[in-house]
Amino acid sequence: MNSPSTPRRLEPRTLSRAQVEQTAERHRTWGRWGPDDELGAANYLTADLVAKAAQLVRRGAVFSLSLPMDRSGPQTGVNGRVNPQHIMLKHGGDILAVPPEVGELRATDDAVYLPLQSSTQWDALAHMFYDGHTYNGRGPETVTSQGAQFNSITNLRDRAVGRGVLLDIPRWLGREWLDPGEAIQAEDLAECARAQGSEVGEGDFVLVRTGQITQRRSVGSWGDYAGGPAPGLGVSAADFLCQRRVAAIATDTWGVEALPYESGELRAPLHIILLINAGVYLGELWDLDALADDCAADGTYEFFLVAVPLSITGAVGSPVNPIAIK
Amino acid sequence: MNSPSTPRRLEPRTLSRAQVEQTAERHRTWGRWGPDDELGAANYLTADLVAKAAQLVRRGAVFSLSLPMDRSGPQTGVNGRVNPQHIMLKHGGDILAVPPEVGELRATDDAVYLPLQSSTQWDALAHMFYDGHTYNGRGPETVTSQGAQFNSITNLRDRAVGRGVLLDIPRWLGREWLDPGEAIQAEDLAECARAQGSEVGEGDFVLVRTGQITQRRSVGSWGDYAGGPAPGLGVSAADFLCQRRVAAIATDTWGVEALPYESGELRAPLHIILLINAGVYLGELWDLDALADDCAADGTYEFFLVAVPLSITGAVGSPVNPIAIK
Amino acid sequence: MNSPSTPRRLEPRTLSRAQVEQTAERHRTWGRWGPDDELGAANYLTADLVAKAAQLVRRGAVFSLSLPMDRSGPQTGVNGRVNPQHIMLKHGGDILAVPPEVGELRATDDAVYLPLQSSTQWDALAHMFYDGHTYNGRGPETVTSQGAQFNSITNLRDRAVGRGVLLDIPRWLGREWLDPGEAIQAEDLAECARAQGSEVGEGDFVLVRTGQITQRRSVGSWGDYAGGPAPGLGVSAADFLCQRRVAAIATDTWGVEALPYESGELRAPLHIILLINAGVYLGELWDLDALADDCAADGTYEFFLVAVPLSITGAVGSPVNPIAIK
Amino acid sequence: MNSPSTPRRLEPRTLSRAQVEQTAERHRTWGRWGPDDELGAANYLTADLVAKAAQLVRRGAVFSLSLPMDRSGPQTGVNGRVNPQHIMLKHGGDILAVPPEVGELRATDDAVYLPLQSSTQWDALAHMFYDGHTYNGRGPETVTSQGAQFNSITNLRDRAVGRGVLLDIPRWLGREWLDPGEAIQAEDLAECARAQGSEVGEGDFVLVRTGQITQRRSVGSWGDYAGGPAPGLGVSAADFLCQRRVAAIATDTWGVEALPYESGELRAPLHIILLINAGVYLGELWDLDALADDCAADGTYEFFLVAVPLSITGAVGSPVNPIAIK
Repeated sequence: MNSPSTPRRLEPRTLSRAQVEQTAERHRTWGRWGPDDELGAANYLTADLVAKAAQLVRRGAVFSLSLPMDRSGPQTGVNGRVNPQHIMLKHGGDILAVPPEVGELRATDDAVYLPLQSSTQWDALAHMFYDGHTYNGRGPETVTSQGAQFNSITNLRDRAVGRGVLLDIPRWLGREWLDPGEAIQAEDLAECARAQGSEVGEGDFVLVRTGQITQRRSVGSWGDYAGGPAPGLGVSAADFLCQRRVAAIATDTWGVEALPYESGELRAPLHIILLINAGVYLGELWDLDALADDCAADGTYEFFLVAVPLSITGAVGSPVNPIAIK
Repeated sequence: MNSPSTPRRLEPRTLSRAQVEQTAERHRTWGRWGPDDELGAANYLTADLVAKAAQLVRRGAVFSLSLPMDRSGPQTGVNGRVNPQHIMLKHGGDILAVPPEVGELRATDDAVYLPLQSSTQWDALAHMFYDGHTYNGRGPETVTSQGAQFNSITNLRDRAVGRGVLLDIPRWLGREWLDPGEAIQAEDLAECARAQGSEVGEGDFVLVRTGQITQRRSVGSWGDYAGGPAPGLGVSAADFLCQRRVAAIATDTWGVEALPYESGELRAPLHIILLINAGVYLGELWDLDALADDCAADGTYEFFLVAVPLSITGAVGSPVNPIAIK
Repeated sequence: MNSPSTPRRLEPRTLSRAQVEQTAERHRTWGRWGPDDELGAANYLTADLVAKAAQLVRRGAVFSLSLPMDRSGPQTGVNGRVNPQHIMLKHGGDILAVPPEVGELRATDDAVYLPLQSSTQWDALAHMFYDGHTYNGRGPETVTSQGAQFNSITNLRDRAVGRGVLLDIPRWLGREWLDPGEAIQAEDLAECARAQGSEVGEGDFVLVRTGQITQRRSVGSWGDYAGGPAPGLGVSAADFLCQRRVAAIATDTWGVEALPYESGELRAPLHIILLINAGVYLGELWDLDALADDCAADGTYEFFLVAVPLSITGAVGSPVNPIAIK
Repeated sequence: MNSPSTPRRLEPRTLSRAQVEQTAERHRTWGRWGPDDELGAANYLTADLVAKAAQLVRRGAVFSLSLPMDRSGPQTGVNGRVNPQHIMLKHGGDILAVPPEVGELRATDDAVYLPLQSSTQWDALAHMFYDGHTYNGRGPETVTSQGAQFNSITNLRDRAVGRGVLLDIPRWLGREWLDPGEAIQAEDLAECARAQGSEVGEGDFVLVRTGQITQRRSVGSWGDYAGGPAPGLGVSAADFLCQRRVAAIATDTWGVEALPYESGELRAPLHIILLINAGVYLGELWDLDALADDCAADGTYEFFLVAVPLSITGAVGSPVNPIAIK
């Protein structure tokens, strides 16, 4: 890949609320697939595209993009997001303490207390509301103790299957990682794709690597990774993604977006534009490092991606073990 | 598919402990892939086989084989296996009660308390111990409060990807479902495969439909589905599966095996043979009905299967949303 | 105690919604202790009464009125009320598997997933809403994901301390237990108290034994105990309790009230009258059998009661281990 | 109270493992109440002492010694000890979103995921093992996935009722709080008691205030309160407590003991001596500030204490809302 001759920082921009809202309206897809649609941009992903994406499997190399789900994860407990709490219901020690009789089989068993967005995960379209609405105009009254009546992540249970494209921004820039606050704009995505020889198209799952996990690994501590300043997408990235009709975007950060946000007037502008208005799914805390190394090694940045959520009825997010197959 | 002219019951056999243990030893793979191996029969699944399996995707049709994970599931709470408890951490009502300020985005969030084997799941090789050992001779002292030190289900995190074959036993028999206690033997699997025009081979994921979920759906109640008598594999089925070097076997029952077990002298003989000795993974509570209908309709019983577990460190089982792609 | 000569059934009555609502209004205490009060009938319980109640301790006999909190409890999982799930975080087997070094201390540790009303418990005043309000006019918008802003059970954290009186209805009637559907009326409470030689007064905690736990113990199965038909208080009991200005009422049933309810036009009339309107706390699933035996033996049905909830911020109910001291 | 003329620091001592072990043996009570006893020092607490303790109630003033149990607590998640996770199962917003029909009552409901030692709590005798044993010689094989077979905290379910004495060390010293590392010795306890006019006797619950909660409140952050250096008891304190045959000791720190420990050769020497050998119960994270203010105001440092655990079968610790009544 050809990197720019001088490593450069990706400076954030400053947008007004009105500018963000205009972008959101420009990319709004509400009603495009009917008033009852809950799939959003996953509609772009036709069976034909799935079949075509499977043809990207050549070597049979499989990459798990999940962080380990355990107490060593990045969560600090804010808002009830503790790290996954894996607990043994039956323990090897039970078998040692009271050994089975001759011919007796004995089992171990386990459980987890798991905030659904505590590790590698998907945001459901029902995860966020702006001005009282999310995708297709559904309001927060549709998310009750029974979970989301509409726009649950279970809509992806047989849909998060298709073509994945990795855009490895720091590698393109000749850097190890982006720094918190850096904002990847539409033209950065376009140039990175060009440099990689990648095309981004309809129904794609776009994986954008910022290197923030790489950086935290290098220091051996998560610090404020889950909730603090982060590199990520700038608002203009929405133009790149929506014009190409992607199904989803995932990053190796906690919130997809450059933080501090590019607008001081509202929070999480890209969640407003992409998730709520365009119905584009957001993947967060995806570990893209091993995949990125492989893509750099073989020069192939596209792959078959299977990243289906658990089928937890009404869930507004889901842990996921995303699989890239090359 | 050609069914036998007369619908028949699949009668269970009666085996002594010695017979079961001899079968287990015959199929034992301990040491075959080195003394430290934790993958077991997933070793059969080479990159070449993964690549070949992906070529089975033709129409781009995707099937989720997961039950809904919620309080309506089949669990009764025995041994701490309650149904998945999905709980809202932030609720739509919070947004309604204290509406966001202008330009403010507001979120919903959720969590789950989830026994890892409460719904559609995989058994890890560390889930069971017989005579003080599981696959490759590991003992129960290796399963502590930190989970399984060896043979955790996380070994499948990038391995449960390959060729799937459905063997639809009741359809082959011209019946709606098998009854509790019926035992599918090696020759039944062979004949069903032949009738379907299917071959079962190295590294395959074999999905055996008994129809028990179909039956419980027809009566509208799970009853004793999770833990009670069930149709399933007879002991001889291990010969069919191990000779063909399959990676895994999954069924639409709670425990893979015909229950009551074919031996009165020990419990769960097929867990002893397949999971513990042969290192063959067991999938349970898989919902095969929609896939089976499609296979019957197009006559194609093979597909690309992606059924990766969550990457919960040390887990001895995992919920899974298995995906069949045709 | 003098029982009626002939054992008799306590027949339920039939009330219209209007009759229930009139009773509720008659006993409504909203505003009595100011518009911001959250204590309700616990206001009756002055320091003087606490001090006087402590003088009831004579023998130093202590009775725990809690059921065992474990998986053998009466819950069926309906509405997310599973039995308490006690789970080991550190297990004796960890110590056995990796024995401590010389001079090293090693610990076990545990956790619980606990629906707050799954076993012996208190209802908070914020647990129920009728016509959009609970005690002192607070609406359901005050119960958010942060819990109850007002009328949480934590208001009792230093208040559930005072005089307890047991009214042992089946013993008074010369029966082993009441049957489901039987309704204890105001005059039954009065007569039972008279027969026992008990007085019920201001700030008291009245414990009414129906014997339903006794009955379930006798058959060895909870059956539909948690949620099904039950003996309990009839609507008129509210007159007895509110005229005497009791602080709380607790029973050995899942819901205090006779079920089926005495009104076909609304559910849980006594929750409406006592909890919501009078601010009288309701204790449910209290095990009164051992205490009742002792009261019968020594003829003393009054005692010092300490039944403080856990101090879980915002909780709308609480597990409790109520202690009667004689 | 007469404080020493010059505020002084309480310097820790240095002990060898042998010295700690000798102290432990000196205070060992194993076998004193029979080989099957599980009560330990709670045996000292006779009915007579309970009855006498109740006479300490004069004003009817009630003090809750519990911290708020919520996500603002001191835990950091180490070893799975997250703060109490209170979660709504039914939410006020459900009622607002789908208002009840006329005459319909609607409920809120909640649950908690609670590590049993995450807030104000008791250690069970089965919480710790030294040299393979805890009280009365029980080994770690008795703590399985079913919890503790012996020495569970449920043994206190009707026993943690008696005389409480507060020893307010910083107030005696004329200081606001002790600093981490300061160690309260036997003679400090004796002098503080004398200065207060208190006697400590058989079956007592001794509450020792260090002021560490006060200090953390003054800075507005828990910091390393749960698990870090702390003021607390020095090893010699065991002599004071065991000679007087107390039932239990509780402090306003996470671990009762001065930390760093007074012995570099073993951890938690006082847990070894008091909990394991003497069978004296340890209470941790008790909030003693309000009670201490009251004791200073009225000069009375003794009270009736009720601090019963939840009745969670087999638990090795328990949350508690301890109640002091004066």
